[in-house]
Amino acid sequence: MTDAPAVPSLLLTRSDRHIGARVADSALRSYGSAAAVDEFRHWMDAERTRTSANAERIPLDDLVGWRSDPDTGAIAHESGRFFAVEGLSVEIPGSAVPYWEQPIMNQPEIGILGILAREFDGVLYFLMQAKAEPGNCNGVQISPTVQATRSNYTGVHRGRPVPYLEYFTDTSAHRVIADVRQSEQGSAFLRKRNRNMVIEVREDVELLDGFRWLTAGQLHELLRVDDLVNMDARSVLACLPFTGPGRDRAGRDGFTAALVRSCGGGEGGLHPMESLLSWITATRSGTEVRTRTVPLAGLSHWRRGPDRISHDGGGFFDVIGVKVEASGREVGGWTQPMFAARRPGIVAFLVTRVEGVLHVLTQLRVEPGFVDVAELAPTVQCTPENHERLPAGARPPFLDEVLRAAADAIRFDVTLSDEGGRFYHTRNRHLIVETAERHEHPDFRWMTLHQLAGLLRHSHYVDMQARSLLACLHTLRTEPGR
Amino acid sequence: MTDAPAVPSLLLTRSDRHIGARVADSALRSYGSAAAVDEFRHWMDAERTRTSANAERIPLDDLVGWRSDPDTGAIAHESGRFFAVEGLSVEIPGSAVPYWEQPIMNQPEIGILGILAREFDGVLYFLMQAKAEPGNCNGVQISPTVQATRSNYTGVHRGRPVPYLEYFTDTSAHRVIADVRQSEQGSAFLRKRNRNMVIEVREDVELLDGFRWLTAGQLHELLRVDDLVNMDARSVLACLPFTGPGRDRAGRDGFTAALVRSCGGGEGGLHPMESLLSWITATRSGTEVRTRTVPLAGLSHWRRGPDRISHDGGGFFDVIGVKVEASGREVGGWTQPMFAARRPGIVAFLVTRVEGVLHVLTQLRVEPGFVDVAELAPTVQCTPENHERLPAGARPPFLDEVLRAAADAIRFDVTLSDEGGRFYHTRNRHLIVETAERHEHPDFRWMTLHQLAGLLRHSHYVDMQARSLLACLHTLRTEPGR
Repeated sequence: MTDAPAVPSLLLTRSDRHIGARVADSALRSYGSAAAVDEFRHWMDAERTRTSANAERIPLDDLVGWRSDPDTGAIAHESGRFFAVEGLSVEIPGSAVPYWEQPIMNQPEIGILGILAREFDGVLYFLMQAKAEPGNCNGVQISPTVQATRSNYTGVHRGRPVPYLEYFTDTSAHRVIADVRQSEQGSAFLRKRNRNMVIEVREDVELLDGFRWLTAGQLHELLRVDDLVNMDARSVLACLPFTGPGRDRAGRDGFTAALVRSCGGGEGGLHPMESLLSWITATRSGTEVRTRTVPLAGLSHWRRGPDRISHDGGGFFDVIGVKVEASGREVGGWTQPMFAARRPGIVAFLVTRVEGVLHVLTQLRVEPGFVDVAELAPTVQCTPENHERLPAGARPPFLDEVLRAAADAIRFDVTLSDEGGRFYHTRNRHLIVETAERHEHPDFRWMTLHQLAGLLRHSHYVDMQARSLLACLHTLRTEPGR
Repeated sequence: MTDAPAVPSLLLTRSDRHIGARVADSALRSYGSAAAVDEFRHWMDAERTRTSANAERIPLDDLVGWRSDPDTGAIAHESGRFFAVEGLSVEIPGSAVPYWEQPIMNQPEIGILGILAREFDGVLYFLMQAKAEPGNCNGVQISPTVQATRSNYTGVHRGRPVPYLEYFTDTSAHRVIADVRQSEQGSAFLRKRNRNMVIEVREDVELLDGFRWLTAGQLHELLRVDDLVNMDARSVLACLPFTGPGRDRAGRDGFTAALVRSCGGGEGGLHPMESLLSWITATRSGTEVRTRTVPLAGLSHWRRGPDRISHDGGGFFDVIGVKVEASGREVGGWTQPMFAARRPGIVAFLVTRVEGVLHVLTQLRVEPGFVDVAELAPTVQCTPENHERLPAGARPPFLDEVLRAAADAIRFDVTLSDEGGRFYHTRNRHLIVETAERHEHPDFRWMTLHQLAGLLRHSHYVDMQARSLLACLHTLRTEPGR
């Protein structure tokens, strides 16, 4: 640090730039030893005995506190809060599948996904929670400090107050690193958004049971483990700025160096930012997505059995009921509907180096639940089996290239869970595949991480799956210690 | 220019930075002589004889091609296109006026407001149109190259094709300087947006009657004339990037120097960008705006007479009918409903210098027609007479400070028209007032022009009135030649 000036300046924005470097520095601090990782796993195992949210599948008619509307079949909580499962008709004239109907979750409230940050000995740490969710295939996963719906913190649950929530509802005494409403899955939620927040405190914070301070580097190591870092945590981590050095044994020609340059932005990208923004504007202005709430009971190609609402073809997802027995949470037990994917999905980024700068192939994807028509999505975002029945034109581009990638082109391959409060045992294989081919496709653009980071400061540009993969991509700032 | 490298780089973003400097350079090129300004006025006068759209007020029942719904009273075009006048109920719990009803224009189509740019002898020029609109108090005003609703260019008008439209519907061969959907007045339109576009061409462009190439500096001189540069042109001009030098006789301590520094961003601002974004996110997440379409016929406090739908108190605006006789346009004559403000409004920015960097006091304003709850608005945006009847808590902050400003604190004071296709003789006094007082108010923030420019690249952050004033503020990059 340089000496403080005699008269401190009121103009503060310059210090903004440092936060990306502090996050990048935190990403260099990993566990450092197998023993330290073991210790963390031991703690997670202990948390799994201390806290749980075990779900048992029950018939839809056995949901308690939830009511199926006699006219429409829509399933809603009797309080009118939480969320409802409704029917949706979707019309997208001119698209490969121009009309369909589907169940959708309607949750108009904007919740908070918040991570608290604090510096210890010059290194930035993030306060993470070992949280049990009923839909998790393994009970407890690593979650943000706070994961609260409005119902949570306005007391509809009648449960215990949400710990650390006050840092996010009043940020005036703290430093905002990120605070942006981001969408959740637009194929399952009708216009659902959550506030993704990272707040840095300079004061002491009491460390409660079930919470741990982790560096970005430690989080990156844990992201390489299947089903360990939950979806909400990945969503918020993707909104962190990263500028500054990585670590790469191959030196300045290596993959990591290209990734670091891509974050910095000084080298530019294949497309100027204005041209990328114009592509998004043109698509959003020229695409008509007509959605209408329709009776859940009468959806074409969907039928309600005792245990599930499912698609005739057996694809997509089921709407199921679960009974939850919880310990170590605000509420001891409840029942609720959930969405359960029939099969794991695939989300994948093709990445390539252009003059030593890493570029990511993003698609502009239209989903019925998006607030603003289309969002940037991974190169591939699909459940391959769902496309076997669809017309050939609806086969996802680049899916085959990703599935047939050579082992040494696969930079990341980890299966991670969708949010366990709404999705039951629903998982996506996360793949990052390097290619030498600079594909061109009207619905896709190569973008730098700097360009994506610029868009992530604003709402509704980057979809949940792309955010999840971007959190994974940042783990490659340091080579895994294999 | 430096020599071109032997192998040209594919990474293009760097050249992006130059556009702001080229715009700023164009702003230094003004008419230079009274004779040149006279010549332009002479051309405008000639245009006023060549082209016209004279409006005559007619009873609402005499509208042809428009139908008042017998049940609701809503006035819509028989084709279902253009726009409709409907009733809206607005509920904003906790606000100074928590419930009201009003007429509103519903125009869901996204039109194009486009300005074509081209370099001549190293200077950037903008192609502007002398366009007659029925609501203009003076017939013809300076408008963007293209001002087209979707109905215009999909042929519902059955008029002539829109000149130059093709540059904006297919930008692939050109350079995009700006392309962003921006809101229009949220108190008069229900979620109306237009694409605000500036497209640079490198090829020759045929100059049609009624069009002129103008520098940014010439446009700035014309912006200092009452009712000359129309609202759509101001909206698009506000989306232009400005970086690079201005001209100020007072040197580096002058107002212009502070304005130029404010555009550059290198000096920072009173609030870091993340903290401003967090303020916007918190307001949008925490404010509930419930709007509902209700019968226009039954609006409380509004009544329909033969000539107008008006408010009981005589304030706000009237919905009127006009018959238009046009020449030099796509269509020769028509009738339509319009909104007519009862009195001129005031839009004003308080500005202040902080350590030599100009800051603008913006408010986060909630309007029923905004797509996303709230947008940044001028310090003052109101019609003073409308507030005489409202409770004291609803008196607009800073209105009195603006109205009582000393003459030497007033940097800009010009009355400009609202868009003449929808608004009849509706005008706002545009004021920019310098203050030494660094006000603090929970609903207001001091922002630099660099910060506002960053937000203007994205949709729905900066409202129409603030964009209009920002276009005016940039005229102060050069001192007027008085």
